[in-house]
Amino acid sequence: VITSVCLNPALDVTHHVPRVDWTEVNRPGSVHTRPGGKGLNVARTLHALGVDVLAMGLSGGVTGAGVEAALAGLGLPAVFTRVSGETRRTFTVVDGASGAAAGFHEPGPRLSSEEFAEFCVKYEKALDGSAAVALSGSLPPGLPASAYATLIEMASAAGVPAVLDAHGEALLRGAAAGPAVVKPNLAELESLTGQPLPVGRGDGLSAVADAARRLLRAGAHAVVASLGADGLLAVTPEGCWRAEPPAAVTGNPTGAGDAVTAGLVQGLAHGWPWEERLRHAVALGTSAVAAPVAGEFSQDEYQRVLAAATVSRDGGR
Amino acid sequence: VITSVCLNPALDVTHHVPRVDWTEVNRPGSVHTRPGGKGLNVARTLHALGVDVLAMGLSGGVTGAGVEAALAGLGLPAVFTRVSGETRRTFTVVDGASGAAAGFHEPGPRLSSEEFAEFCVKYEKALDGSAAVALSGSLPPGLPASAYATLIEMASAAGVPAVLDAHGEALLRGAAAGPAVVKPNLAELESLTGQPLPVGRGDGLSAVADAARRLLRAGAHAVVASLGADGLLAVTPEGCWRAEPPAAVTGNPTGAGDAVTAGLVQGLAHGWPWEERLRHAVALGTSAVAAPVAGEFSQDEYQRVLAAATVSRDGGR
Repeated sequence: VITSVCLNPALDVTHHVPRVDWTEVNRPGSVHTRPGGKGLNVARTLHALGVDVLAMGLSGGVTGAGVEAALAGLGLPAVFTRVSGETRRTFTVVDGASGAAAGFHEPGPRLSSEEFAEFCVKYEKALDGSAAVALSGSLPPGLPASAYATLIEMASAAGVPAVLDAHGEALLRGAAAGPAVVKPNLAELESLTGQPLPVGRGDGLSAVADAARRLLRAGAHAVVASLGADGLLAVTPEGCWRAEPPAAVTGNPTGAGDAVTAGLVQGLAHGWPWEERLRHAVALGTSAVAAPVAGEFSQDEYQRVLAAATVSRDGGR
Repeated sequence: VITSVCLNPALDVTHHVPRVDWTEVNRPGSVHTRPGGKGLNVARTLHALGVDVLAMGLSGGVTGAGVEAALAGLGLPAVFTRVSGETRRTFTVVDGASGAAAGFHEPGPRLSSEEFAEFCVKYEKALDGSAAVALSGSLPPGLPASAYATLIEMASAAGVPAVLDAHGEALLRGAAAGPAVVKPNLAELESLTGQPLPVGRGDGLSAVADAARRLLRAGAHAVVASLGADGLLAVTPEGCWRAEPPAAVTGNPTGAGDAVTAGLVQGLAHGWPWEERLRHAVALGTSAVAAPVAGEFSQDEYQRVLAAATVSRDGGR
């Protein structure tokens, strides 16, 4: 089993409106509701790949009940700790005329330390029998920035390798706890260094690699930076790899990073060599962009990119 | 007890965003969730007035459970029939910079005739002991346009007078069933006549009165047209009354019509004379505009408008 942790899940609601009037009442032509939050997107991608996955998280109120019901409807095994606050919603409006999407993301419920402790008891139980664990997404209000570090230390103690996708202080503290892989995106690396990191050619990539090395020095065993349409850059003690999709894909980039995380944790669980892991992860990320909904990917596009992606060693030097 | 029926309730979610970016992810500064739909707004206004009220409706899925939980939290007595579909949501995004509000209203769940029959059994039971009934809002998909007519006939058989706030075919069919009062707004009268009805002075009002008389001829015992900031026009077999607020109030007109309906059904239940009913209703409608949230009203503003509103007989001639 691969365990995917989502401390701040969401009910994702998407309205498709033929032509939005931003000052009036609109009647959406279609409404989609699905369990969301990065950790649940990772779990859904793994589930779609046929991987034995367990989603774990915190759930509160009727919105939390909705998230749990939606996961059950997908047949995705999940263990949730009930909390007193209300699980957040994200609301996305897609304008059919312009193609633009506006997102409105509610904050999560404030958690107590007792609620997090209750989660940890269930998490420790789940680690027994997990091949790897993915820890993804923002921390809900009330949790200390060390929350992911705590979960990584518990995983290490149980001999379970972890992939971390977080940002800011939670990422830094988490990296210090020695996860097998951290997966920042460009924005996360930029906020770490305080410098813009234009990818482009040459210098750009080496600046990204330098930023990634800060996370290695902090304690992460490997860093895989996701560069959007520019693919992945892996920086490990054994060297650097660059994975590039054959061509930029247009679509919805939301959730593409989560598909990359899913690919990385699957490769970690199976002990695949880096080249294979990265080819799988970049194909998942690219095929997620081609799918209309976060947490889903196009199987055809996955196969196409898997065959056509280039993975080159030392690309970041 | 006054019974307020809401066949198509909603969970109303409002996001306040300091400055909306319509092409990006926004983080709402505050999130408000409340039970909505016109019939529940009427019930909440009556409840706030200290009136003994029973809300009745249809509720489905986790969103319906959320609506029921929110009413219970307000201490508002409610009897819901559970249905297999999912209760709808409305999302409103208020842009702090421009003050503009965008609304996104989901369609309601599709109802089966068995579900409506189950509701009718509970409704018939509730009529026994009701002083009056308010029937407000859109019909959910799957219900025939005669649904309100059916409920008005059941109320008549039980000796309970009804106020109807509906539109289109449901309004026409409902009026034919002989409710004590129908409360169309200008847009509803316009869609009935197929003609624009500018209020203004003189001719404008008499055109509104003519449109209202069509509903009298259809079978309604009285018609109270709500004219927005221009107040109310009542057309009854005993004559016409015009109720005007002292001055236009700026604020949120959503739910003002529901506050008027609440005032009208309360006056009907108590048998108040038309002048008193209309003064109460126009003060509630105006004070609802001054309140930031649909289904609520400002007590101070209510008292102020009640004292200052003018109600004149034969104003519509």
